[in-house]
Amino acid sequence: MTVVQIITTREQLKQRMARKSSVSSVEPAVRSILDEVKQFKDAALLDLTERFDGVQLQTLRVSEQEIEDAYQEVSSTLLQALRDAKGRIQLFHEQQKEESWRIEPEEGVYLGQQVRPLSSAGIYIPGGKASYPSTVLMNALPAKIAGVKRLVLTTPPQPDGTVNAAVLVAADLCGVDEIYKVGGAQAIAALAYGTETIRPVHKITGPGNAYVACAKKLVFGHVSIDMIAGPSEVCIWADGQSNITFVAADLLAQAEHDEDAMACCLVPSLKYANALSEEVYRQLELMERKEIAEKSIQANGWIAVVEIEDETIEIINELAPEHLEILTADPESRLDDIEHAGAIFLGAFSPEALGDYMAGPNHTLPTSGTAKFSSPLGVYDFVKKTSIIRYSEEALGHVSEQIIELAKTERLQGHAQAIRVRAGEESR
Amino acid sequence: MTVVQIITTREQLKQRMARKSSVSSVEPAVRSILDEVKQFKDAALLDLTERFDGVQLQTLRVSEQEIEDAYQEVSSTLLQALRDAKGRIQLFHEQQKEESWRIEPEEGVYLGQQVRPLSSAGIYIPGGKASYPSTVLMNALPAKIAGVKRLVLTTPPQPDGTVNAAVLVAADLCGVDEIYKVGGAQAIAALAYGTETIRPVHKITGPGNAYVACAKKLVFGHVSIDMIAGPSEVCIWADGQSNITFVAADLLAQAEHDEDAMACCLVPSLKYANALSEEVYRQLELMERKEIAEKSIQANGWIAVVEIEDETIEIINELAPEHLEILTADPESRLDDIEHAGAIFLGAFSPEALGDYMAGPNHTLPTSGTAKFSSPLGVYDFVKKTSIIRYSEEALGHVSEQIIELAKTERLQGHAQAIRVRAGEESR
Repeated sequence: MTVVQIITTREQLKQRMARKSSVSSVEPAVRSILDEVKQFKDAALLDLTERFDGVQLQTLRVSEQEIEDAYQEVSSTLLQALRDAKGRIQLFHEQQKEESWRIEPEEGVYLGQQVRPLSSAGIYIPGGKASYPSTVLMNALPAKIAGVKRLVLTTPPQPDGTVNAAVLVAADLCGVDEIYKVGGAQAIAALAYGTETIRPVHKITGPGNAYVACAKKLVFGHVSIDMIAGPSEVCIWADGQSNITFVAADLLAQAEHDEDAMACCLVPSLKYANALSEEVYRQLELMERKEIAEKSIQANGWIAVVEIEDETIEIINELAPEHLEILTADPESRLDDIEHAGAIFLGAFSPEALGDYMAGPNHTLPTSGTAKFSSPLGVYDFVKKTSIIRYSEEALGHVSEQIIELAKTERLQGHAQAIRVRAGEESR
Repeated sequence: MTVVQIITTREQLKQRMARKSSVSSVEPAVRSILDEVKQFKDAALLDLTERFDGVQLQTLRVSEQEIEDAYQEVSSTLLQALRDAKGRIQLFHEQQKEESWRIEPEEGVYLGQQVRPLSSAGIYIPGGKASYPSTVLMNALPAKIAGVKRLVLTTPPQPDGTVNAAVLVAADLCGVDEIYKVGGAQAIAALAYGTETIRPVHKITGPGNAYVACAKKLVFGHVSIDMIAGPSEVCIWADGQSNITFVAADLLAQAEHDEDAMACCLVPSLKYANALSEEVYRQLELMERKEIAEKSIQANGWIAVVEIEDETIEIINELAPEHLEILTADPESRLDDIEHAGAIFLGAFSPEALGDYMAGPNHTLPTSGTAKFSSPLGVYDFVKKTSIIRYSEEALGHVSEQIIELAKTERLQGHAQAIRVRAGEESR
């Protein structure tokens, strides 16, 4: 009665590790939405919102009154949880702040790197049936800590034309400056190109469905984006002693996200694998989101039996999972050998759910193996750098000949000339 | 006899400031090249190199012998210039190194950020008639300082099947690990997807023509890329006292890059503008690359008369130029007000040519106004971060209720359950 595939050979494993690449069949539709918003601006947003969200809006912007009302709607327990989460997320992200610096490597030479916040950024928060106040915190707080002056949030309206109260409260707690009721590719278009109501921003972050992801990819270059997120993933490394109840619960917590979510586990023995699989099955029966979790586990869940620890490390590095939980007896022992992961959760009492909400580090993490070259969302995503160069006449003199030599090599005699005129040569 | 357009109204200025967006008509061709390389790998590379570069290669990889020979080919002056440039670029970029960190914000809670180099990266260096050893230094050194273990360089072969000696020497000086003779979109495809000879890399950087830029945009997401570079730009801020010879030389140094390059200047009076325009014309006549520079100046060059300093600052920030030269009497006085620029060159003896080759900061800079949200290429482009989370049982207990509250709000009861089982609730 096992529902999780148990893998015992490297050939099988290799097949399961290959993530499906999402073929973007939505691109033509997304292109036409982008064009529509570019051309008809607010009118297009209202029209598309009616078409896709079934809501006729009068105004796109969420009013002060709506935000005030939202505070009345959320429980004091939730408000406190949001405040606590905010504090812990702030504490971690404050560490990521970068200072501008200057050096004087020799007399008459000043070089520097100025770090400045982006002047504006936009956050996309999915809506519809679900609400993600935690995602608001995880996107808005790094931006505000970076010093972004104008922080905009867009989210699709609920069927009654309102925005989820928890989302509004979370946004307000973070100091989000403008909130708009618009979702999908049209929201990304508005943030990138601007409309009468929504001024464009310089960077767009936040998760979304295939339309949102495709729109972000298409506007990339015109504005900056965070990443193209794929399905969420967890890889759990268990040893023979890891608490099976915990491991199963964590696999299922991942699987409940959506049917494409990937939950996998590396275990040391077939015996453990079988016991874990049974426990997954047992807990699955008790889940409210059983249907989604079951589909996810069946399609993308697996337990691989890997007896040799070095092989386990190798597999993890090849997988480069978004979330890695290490539930072995000494979870730090091989930490330095793990090269690629979005976030690493150490020990039995650091489940992914802790990191999703409360621990402090960002829950926006690189998926689909992109941890090989991408980082968690952070304060560094909301700043940009400018180089500063100042040479005195004498200092320039010390390097003039070398510059001229290099410029000649690259056949850029005008560059050489810009140096020569400063040495008094060939000026008028 | 003025060749540079002089602008005196804000309406004219607004028009000139709008960069042409490069409509990518090459996309279908690039897509088919990517597909060809994905399918036929090395065979496709050899075939495409014959087709586009007119060279029949036996092997793609540059041999040790070819690198040794290159050292014989370059002059000792050039070799010394490359070594000096390398030292200065290293000195600046060493400052950009980031350390991993850990904090213990409360008992039983460890949070951290691990900074690790990308394990591989690929640099694209344009070839053909020109050679860009400086670009090799500017891309390879940050990667090596970051700690990239496998650094690959690709560049199109010259008509005789060799690679420019200065490029080879520069690559070798930087410790580039593999060099391949392949250019264009096919090089980007090889770096992204791999062939029998060229293993894929995790990040691709470096400039290139429309095909290369388009290929980089298409492989983005599968691998990381640095940026989509547009035409190079300089904006010079002159006051009435700025040395006209210097300003004109710097405008022309920019203009000689290519016909699309943009050279502009903000000046305080029509009198200065006229004198500058005349000087540009005078120096233009003396240029080896007169034809290119003239076309660039005519198409994209302008001098704007802006009497009020605050307006000058406003224009600069709107333009967000790749290179900003401030040649005013006190170039630092308004530095803090400049929000957007790739690199800022201060004073009469810090021409862009200094930064292109020798000053130390990177010459790969955000173009087309993307300085509003992008940074110079740096060591930070070749590292990625992993978050570390470790909570003790007791520490998790302190936040369990809040996590459960937030999970319930987001209708992720499986997440709540992952916390509950750790509190001994509902375990078996």
